[in-house]
Amino acid sequence: MNDNMGNAVGLSHLFLRERVKPGDRVVDATCGNGHDTLFLAGLVEAEGAVFAFDVQEQALEKTRLLLEENKCLDRVQLFHAGHQELAAYVPDPVQAVAFNLGYLPGSDKSCITRAATTLAALEQASYLVVSGGVIVVVIYPGHDGGGEEAAAVEYWARSLPRSFSAWCSRQVNRSSAAPYVVLAAKVS
Amino acid sequence: MNDNMGNAVGLSHLFLRERVKPGDRVVDATCGNGHDTLFLAGLVEAEGAVFAFDVQEQALEKTRLLLEENKCLDRVQLFHAGHQELAAYVPDPVQAVAFNLGYLPGSDKSCITRAATTLAALEQASYLVVSGGVIVVVIYPGHDGGGEEAAAVEYWARSLPRSFSAWCSRQVNRSSAAPYVVLAAKVS
Repeated sequence: MNDNMGNAVGLSHLFLRERVKPGDRVVDATCGNGHDTLFLAGLVEAEGAVFAFDVQEQALEKTRLLLEENKCLDRVQLFHAGHQELAAYVPDPVQAVAFNLGYLPGSDKSCITRAATTLAALEQASYLVVSGGVIVVVIYPGHDGGGEEAAAVEYWARSLPRSFSAWCSRQVNRSSAAPYVVLAAKVS
Repeated sequence: MNDNMGNAVGLSHLFLRERVKPGDRVVDATCGNGHDTLFLAGLVEAEGAVFAFDVQEQALEKTRLLLEENKCLDRVQLFHAGHQELAAYVPDPVQAVAFNLGYLPGSDKSCITRAATTLAALEQASYLVVSGGVIVVVIYPGHDGGGEEAAAVEYWARSLPRSFSAWCSRQVNRSSAAPYVVLAAKVS
């Protein structure tokens, strides 16, 4: 049974699946262990392209292995760079940009995404995404620095022009530290 | 282009579409002009069943006409009753219950859904819905009495047991009076 409403990552996938189709160009701004990269590679299929970023070599290596195992490394470009450099590596429009903030699971918890660079990346994403496209952000408010970053993402979402429909989806019968989703759908 | 992220009704349809399939039994707790009833009738197809409620005869008549025009009245049962009587008319489990609160568009604005009866209906819905099923509520906080009803729905959602995953999705770059969505997905 599909548990895409059971947690924030599931809900973010539901939103991405709604807007991404075979052949699209999309960005994974934060590879982490590669699960979102693999999910996006599945959505765009062999004719599409995924541009995936991480500052940690360890994350890129895990992602590369996962993609190889699933035979879809062919359509993915991995960049050893922070997501705030998004526009430099991906100059042309994309259908979707996915962010999964916080730290790499099972790794050094001091290596986290931070408000300033996340905001810079979101700003670039809002220019890169085409009409009918989407930016999806999974936010972890529970760790040190997570609250500040969450506030920054929400500020960005509230300030988006009406050419975007920005939604904040919180899991209300869980702890206030539960991950949640910010979605910015560009109107076509 | 699919504008299912452009407003609260669109988002509610995205959530319903994710969980409702041909052959399912579902409830439209508030027919109104029949748009949600028609949408649900399309999802469950000819082998499914939609149980649709409204306290206003005018709403049921509009819904009946819309379903006839679209050749899907066959799978819909219309009940001239308030949604707080849900469990009396639909004793057996259902896959989904949809609520679209507020008043009937183009009609008497004093005839609105109210916190007490809406809560009673939501309570019944949470017992009727099967594992893997969903309750979706579109909330209009802007009209007189809307704020109170919105607070009641959110209280209900926050109080749901962990067998539900309850989400509140707000459109953050619009007015605070903008309609929004509460979703309760029952874990399977």
